Amino acid sequence: MDQKLADLISLGLTRPSPVIILVEQQLFENIGMVARAMANFGLGELRLVKPRDGWSVSSTLPKGAHQAASGAVPVLEAAKLFDDVRAATADMNRVYATTARERDQMKQVLTPGEAMPQMAARIATGERVGILFGRERTGLENAEIGMSNAIITFPVNPVFSSLNLAQAVLLIGYEWMKHARNDAVPYTRETDVAPARQATLLSFFDFLDAELDKAGHFPADKRDIMSRNLRDILQRREMSEQDVRSLRGAISALVRRNS
Amino acid sequence: MDQKLADLISLGLTRPSPVIILVEQQLFENIGMVARAMANFGLGELRLVKPRDGWSVSSTLPKGAHQAASGAVPVLEAAKLFDDVRAATADMNRVYATTARERDQMKQVLTPGEAMPQMAARIATGERVGILFGRERTGLENAEIGMSNAIITFPVNPVFSSLNLAQAVLLIGYEWMKHARNDAVPYTRETDVAPARQATLLSFFDFLDAELDKAGHFPADKRDIMSRNLRDILQRREMSEQDVRSLRGAISALVRRNS
Repeated sequence: MDQKLADLISLGLTRPSPVIILVEQQLFENIGMVARAMANFGLGELRLVKPRDGWSVSSTLPKGAHQAASGAVPVLEAAKLFDDVRAATADMNRVYATTARERDQMKQVLTPGEAMPQMAARIATGERVGILFGRERTGLENAEIGMSNAIITFPVNPVFSSLNLAQAVLLIGYEWMKHARNDAVPYTRETDVAPARQATLLSFFDFLDAELDKAGHFPADKRDIMSRNLRDILQRREMSEQDVRSLRGAISALVRRNS
Repeated sequence: MDQKLADLISLGLTRPSPVIILVEQQLFENIGMVARAMANFGLGELRLVKPRDGWSVSSTLPKGAHQAASGAVPVLEAAKLFDDVRAATADMNRVYATTARERDQMKQVLTPGEAMPQMAARIATGERVGILFGRERTGLENAEIGMSNAIITFPVNPVFSSLNLAQAVLLIGYEWMKHARNDAVPYTRETDVAPARQATLLSFFDFLDAELDKAGHFPADKRDIMSRNLRDILQRREMSEQDVRSLRGAISALVRRNS
């Protein structure tokens, strides 16, 4: 197998996903940081339109890009180089242009969160979807935005917006992964443990009441409400069998002391 | 008006929002980049727990932090310094711990997107919500996570996850801004009573530990895990100030008996 492909597979980056297209980036470091942001969120396909300082797809990667990419070098190694946006998007079924400023173009403007369901739906049917990111300082040209089907913009603080390129790609990737995974967390959660059976709980509550009775904790006229209140507090915890045992053990220890 | 406040207002950073709490950061640059990520998404309140190289709230800001913050310097200037997580969260009603790895703690695990509706709803009712971010390399300690009500984790590529601190804060801010912009947040509170402040809870936990120590409940080699486990059980669903008083009263009664 092609080594580049094998490397991408090992990073879990070969599933169909939006293609990130960087237009005339000035700094290799930024290209590297984009690759790293992509790998974090399962995006493996990168296209470069005329980086200012060139790019070589055959020989070694530019050092600055390599370092900034950290472990995401396979994304850089698999990157494809193009002369202009037209060529870079030729095989795409749908192209989104990212831009921070309002543009005088009659296009749909979406947030990353709004764009993602339609991207995912298209990709699921085999379509190719690309997202354009412009130059560090000046962004995309109007003609480049004109070649896109829709605009993506980021819901930033209107008085302070200084997202850099890698951050913008990061947010796209984050929404992509959220959508692809349905917002699932990568590890197990509280609800995997079954709640204690009611018998265990009620027995524990009876035990607690009895001990508090012996300790004279309940004024006669308030016993019911105070007891119920304690049960409420403890019941709200959705305790497992083990939880109840732990708590009962602690209470027993306190009770046994000095007795 | 206070100049610091005026600066925050001019950046649109004074609306109630989650408090970002950085624990023992090593590099000033990272603190600066966090401030910038915060300002991008309308988060203005930053707390620092013992940055490795110190911090001065009265004199000039560390240079590295100042530069990395770019225009978000007002966030740094308004940052508050604390000795430990306990002090930094004392006035919080709810604390979230961010962590990349699975922790052996029985806490709810949420993505930023899942956490945000509940955060927003709580903040809207005047509660104070804090989010803990750990050290660059080692993250949060188990005891620090133990002081939190829930865990936030990021849905990253399981084979390649290298989110840095500022990126993690960026994603939190992004979700915050997304939610803050939606006027309707459909969320019904479990109870209408505000959760106890963190100071009340931690003081209760200390009291419980001390009594269980006196009662000889903890085997020396299992003290930490048993204590943390009890805190988890009690912290899993929030208790109000009144709840904590009720429980503390009951425990005190058990302890006083026969002594």
